[in-house]
Amino acid sequence: MRHIVLGLGISLDGRIARPDGSVDFLFMPKDYSMGPFFKTIDTAIMGRKTYEVVLRMSGGKIPDYGFVTYVFSQSVPPGKRDAITFVNENPKSFAAKLRKAKGKKIWHMGGGELARAFLQDDLIDELYLGIVPVLLGEGIPLFPDGFPQRNFRLVENKTYSQGLITLQYERAPKKKSKH
Amino acid sequence: MRHIVLGLGISLDGRIARPDGSVDFLFMPKDYSMGPFFKTIDTAIMGRKTYEVVLRMSGGKIPDYGFVTYVFSQSVPPGKRDAITFVNENPKSFAAKLRKAKGKKIWHMGGGELARAFLQDDLIDELYLGIVPVLLGEGIPLFPDGFPQRNFRLVENKTYSQGLITLQYERAPKKKSKH
Repeated sequence: MRHIVLGLGISLDGRIARPDGSVDFLFMPKDYSMGPFFKTIDTAIMGRKTYEVVLRMSGGKIPDYGFVTYVFSQSVPPGKRDAITFVNENPKSFAAKLRKAKGKKIWHMGGGELARAFLQDDLIDELYLGIVPVLLGEGIPLFPDGFPQRNFRLVENKTYSQGLITLQYERAPKKKSKH
Repeated sequence: MRHIVLGLGISLDGRIARPDGSVDFLFMPKDYSMGPFFKTIDTAIMGRKTYEVVLRMSGGKIPDYGFVTYVFSQSVPPGKRDAITFVNENPKSFAAKLRKAKGKKIWHMGGGELARAFLQDDLIDELYLGIVPVLLGEGIPLFPDGFPQRNFRLVENKTYSQGLITLQYERAPKKKSKH
């Protein structure tokens, strides 16, 4: 089954962005590369607000990493435009369809609201978090209130320069989970 | 200068407790010990709600680790009772007094509201976090909204069994901090 990986850079206080959506606090140290992660991915999904931040950060055009890209939105009409397919569908049926198709892993790029929706339906198989050594004190949380407990298993914990750490987790087997 | 260390176990989504204050999700793997940390400490401070949780967890009596213990409360009358000194004072003047006295490090045990108050006044010199591999989906955040950005330097990142990781940070030099 194709795994859905929630993968993001966050502050030490769990924020994916400042209140205005900016992510200037994130950084990419020289000894870190997203290459190995990108090789495992062929599909990306994200919420509409995250899409707009990525658009803004990349000068009005989503960078082409060769991923099939879906943007969840309740306001934008569904359908494919340029390289993006807009969807307005519940995560469960959408994930089931994606998982039926063959392919690599699916990258859930956030944001917090879409992460919560996927966690509510227990659709997050893996976490891949980069944590930068800053407390923002405000901003958009990756894990907002409002989903049932989900237990994970630590797969990898790595330290990079400038204090970046990356954490990889897999969803713990359901039978061992109390909730 | 004596350092104030904010030290707590948290869930991967940054919760120090469930909504009802319970911390049953925390665990202490066999290969981990708080001993080395305790050796650096001679004073503990905590908020009144955290105090009540610790009381409840330890059967009605705070365990005696030999620390001088202060509980911040706006409702309980200040003064020493048993081994606890209740205080109702602003963190800045309180920290200044503690730091003037000689001694070991000061352990800030939380909770979130007292952590925020100390972070507002930039009184947290170190972080010592244990992160357990569970998303609670709700609960009391260690870092609630409402303090200015504080940059830190990663000192140590360690992995223990059952997926516990411990992170040690020091406040980054103020001059390098943008905020």
